[in-house]
Amino acid sequence: MVASLRLPSLTSLLFPATTRYPATLRRTVCLRNRPLSGFATAPSGTASPETKSTEVDRLRSDRAVTPRSQDFNAWYLDVIASAELADYGPVRGTMVIRPYGYAIWEAIQEYLNVKFKETGHSNMYFPQFIPYSFIEKEASHVEGFSPELALVTVGGGKELEEKLVVRPTSETIVNHMFTQWIHSYRDLPLMINQWANVTRWEMRTKPFIRTLEFLWQEGHTAHATPEEAEKEAKQMIEIYTRFAFEQTAIPVIPGRKSKLETFAGADITYTIEAMMGDRKALQAGTSHNLGQNFSRAFGTQFADENGERQHVWQTSWAVSTRFVGGIIMTHGDDTGLMLPPKIAPIQVVIVPIWKKDTEKSGVLSAASSVKEALQTAGVRIKLDDTDQRTPGWKFNFWEMKGIPLRIEIGPRDVSSNSVVVSRRDIPGKAGKVFGISMEPSTLVAYVKEKLDEIQSSLLEKALSFRDSNIVDVNSYDELKDAISSGKWARGPWSASDADEQRVKEETGATIRCFPFEQTQGTKTCLMTGNPAEEVAIFAKSY
Amino acid sequence: MVASLRLPSLTSLLFPATTRYPATLRRTVCLRNRPLSGFATAPSGTASPETKSTEVDRLRSDRAVTPRSQDFNAWYLDVIASAELADYGPVRGTMVIRPYGYAIWEAIQEYLNVKFKETGHSNMYFPQFIPYSFIEKEASHVEGFSPELALVTVGGGKELEEKLVVRPTSETIVNHMFTQWIHSYRDLPLMINQWANVTRWEMRTKPFIRTLEFLWQEGHTAHATPEEAEKEAKQMIEIYTRFAFEQTAIPVIPGRKSKLETFAGADITYTIEAMMGDRKALQAGTSHNLGQNFSRAFGTQFADENGERQHVWQTSWAVSTRFVGGIIMTHGDDTGLMLPPKIAPIQVVIVPIWKKDTEKSGVLSAASSVKEALQTAGVRIKLDDTDQRTPGWKFNFWEMKGIPLRIEIGPRDVSSNSVVVSRRDIPGKAGKVFGISMEPSTLVAYVKEKLDEIQSSLLEKALSFRDSNIVDVNSYDELKDAISSGKWARGPWSASDADEQRVKEETGATIRCFPFEQTQGTKTCLMTGNPAEEVAIFAKSY
Repeated sequence: MVASLRLPSLTSLLFPATTRYPATLRRTVCLRNRPLSGFATAPSGTASPETKSTEVDRLRSDRAVTPRSQDFNAWYLDVIASAELADYGPVRGTMVIRPYGYAIWEAIQEYLNVKFKETGHSNMYFPQFIPYSFIEKEASHVEGFSPELALVTVGGGKELEEKLVVRPTSETIVNHMFTQWIHSYRDLPLMINQWANVTRWEMRTKPFIRTLEFLWQEGHTAHATPEEAEKEAKQMIEIYTRFAFEQTAIPVIPGRKSKLETFAGADITYTIEAMMGDRKALQAGTSHNLGQNFSRAFGTQFADENGERQHVWQTSWAVSTRFVGGIIMTHGDDTGLMLPPKIAPIQVVIVPIWKKDTEKSGVLSAASSVKEALQTAGVRIKLDDTDQRTPGWKFNFWEMKGIPLRIEIGPRDVSSNSVVVSRRDIPGKAGKVFGISMEPSTLVAYVKEKLDEIQSSLLEKALSFRDSNIVDVNSYDELKDAISSGKWARGPWSASDADEQRVKEETGATIRCFPFEQTQGTKTCLMTGNPAEEVAIFAKSY
Repeated sequence: MVASLRLPSLTSLLFPATTRYPATLRRTVCLRNRPLSGFATAPSGTASPETKSTEVDRLRSDRAVTPRSQDFNAWYLDVIASAELADYGPVRGTMVIRPYGYAIWEAIQEYLNVKFKETGHSNMYFPQFIPYSFIEKEASHVEGFSPELALVTVGGGKELEEKLVVRPTSETIVNHMFTQWIHSYRDLPLMINQWANVTRWEMRTKPFIRTLEFLWQEGHTAHATPEEAEKEAKQMIEIYTRFAFEQTAIPVIPGRKSKLETFAGADITYTIEAMMGDRKALQAGTSHNLGQNFSRAFGTQFADENGERQHVWQTSWAVSTRFVGGIIMTHGDDTGLMLPPKIAPIQVVIVPIWKKDTEKSGVLSAASSVKEALQTAGVRIKLDDTDQRTPGWKFNFWEMKGIPLRIEIGPRDVSSNSVVVSRRDIPGKAGKVFGISMEPSTLVAYVKEKLDEIQSSLLEKALSFRDSNIVDVNSYDELKDAISSGKWARGPWSASDADEQRVKEETGATIRCFPFEQTQGTKTCLMTGNPAEEVAIFAKSY
């Protein structure tokens, strides 16, 4: 059990967050208010350990999640509740990240933390309270962030002389400290990262996607030349891109933000844009070339090799717990969550099956051996050996939780020394293979191969979904058609900020990015007919 | 370089935070105000890469740290500045944890995180904003924490209807959520942990030891019976104790707090008390048996096996970045920091030595091979191959940074295929061994053995220091003598809270704990002469 995920209690297994209310009502309760009654388990009496009725089973596991195809938003909130990924905090717009959701975040952290260190960044920690005056120093920064600030005005029982900002991001305090650490070119590059909580007073919130407080990492670097800063900003968006593709199977589109969509205080913002299951775009990570905007505002200077004072060139970059929402909305289906194996806290669940008590010990002993063998081989595995639920109920439950692979072991399998393996991503019989040998080396190899296949398959599926929902457009009318049919529009763009604003107002879509991957040939701006250098991607977004 | 510590820049090596001001003045500047000029590197011109003067070397590295024997407090602050462990944040009492200090915290996290998971706890995350009304629900809790609260009163530009507390600890919000997750005995035990920042508006602050905001882990558990809660609280203090002894070589004394010193809201507080180099006590970790105090205040109930509603029994437990301060103050000496190998971000530093340019490449190539061999064997190692500093300067610098072991490689060592190994904990020639073979298997074995020896030796030294500074007392006069001579007093105690308060007022010492390890035999209270069941330890503390 070393360092493996443990669900908070046996009850998470016994009682997914279902209710006697219809799913839609429950959702409403959750959204509007505290999910007090909504998250309650079934009324006492119907939930005794002995209850094995198929009807109760169906009520619990089948009705927990609104089908995705029916109502995407309801499905998303149901999945988060039923899979126990998160809950609502007592303060409006805040979120409690529950163990299963947090374990996904830990997997994200583990991967990125290594990549950041490999590329020369050190972790550190800056205080979260920032003097209000700092925020005002960089003109576009204060404009961008001041509507969203949480302010501490009382400390230790006294009104504070200067109100404090609870960090919405740390560029200002980072620069304040950098001025004290950076003196000469020998101090550069200075490359750090912090894992922290940040606060933005958002009006419209959604679990994982946009919450008052969220968790993220924020990298901050200072360089002697603009070229180095640009290289760093690009390197980090590249690391995010690879992470998205290889670990989370999300085929993001990396690119550059338009001027209107650039981070408040940056010269250039690079982004990775992901297409969710409802075809809305999710900005899943950003990397900013800050130029000298903050270093000029804070006086972050160094003496160059000739002894002359220069302002440093900076970057900052971040991904947040929003990524967990991206994973849910990319891969999930009507049944619930579907996790890419590389990021799944539990990759394989074993469901032992027996009817007679005489069969039980043989089945459980075989299941334990299988678990042991796979765990030793580094597979994250759970054996669901409770006898308080039927195998059918367990199948549904773990499918809803998005476990990539299920191993079923019954008395006949024990006799034949084999198991049945079911893929989460291929429903029903098509995803089920019988007679896989229990012999450890065979089984381990098979399971690992299947996990790799699922990982690739999820990526391919998402890629094909993405590409079939991007329309190349050459006029504003075509763009409007594409957007109104729920798709992304990709077309040449060299029009003004005002034109961009007009598109937003008239269609609800924004420029998600100018993708790095550009089509060849001469281009004509879809809006103005003027020559254009690049295509932009327009979409509605979260 | 995978996941190994990287110092923020080459400059941390070239320019430790020294200054042209005397160390004491610098310290004063740091304490009273921002360390603006105090932390500046030497004036430009004297610090060019060519400067190798022994005098400048001495100024930089020898004068950076006030000797511990001369002024413990000045030494502590100097070590933190010179070793670049932390810096002061812009808001009074806040601290920036710099990469070298943060890496020690990461080592603490890595160890404890595994232990928490092994013992069945899951990580999760609660919002840091807590409605003010929550804090008021548990009477002694609000009394203990209300003077220290930071309050958010403005969000998104508007005055809030209910002010929000920035968490000083999370028992209240945890209970609020537990009421929604716990319904029956099957939901128990519920055992979680979070790594988070917390805020307490402290008036007298000291880096790592007591800061306005600090990092910690807080475990929270709920159980069906008082026995289980008590077992859990004891288990966690036991994990902290082992961690302190085995990883940080701090021989803490585990025990129970007196009623006066018990956590605001707990029935029992267990603590580990460490003796710092100035013989003041540091509370290094606590584990609370909360009884039903919070569950009654919040209505955290479950249906037992008979269907009857009961309040849960709870625990909470925490260690914080204060532990880093404890490591500094336990092991450091006049020269600076001294890190136990198991917790040291860099365990071994290689200093190559050459005079003529013709020697350089041979020495560096040998140094690289040695580094490679040790790194492959899992040793955290740094090769200081800059040619901008003399070997002597590097020796001093890395000793000040507390690296347990130094490997020196000169031209003669290259010829004889051997290295010189110096221990940080044994100054001068006595700690230096010549002629250790460079042959990887020999060297790796030797280095690992030495690291183990240093780890044990630091613990033994701290243990003997601790034990020689605890005086057994049998009267209040003896207690006063012990305390006034700077020692800890251990004596039988069954007197009243008022008597305990009197000791505090008259001597400045408090009951640190009733140690688990008790002497046998009948005891007579040192204050009242009445029978006593236990000895208590009194000491001045941080």
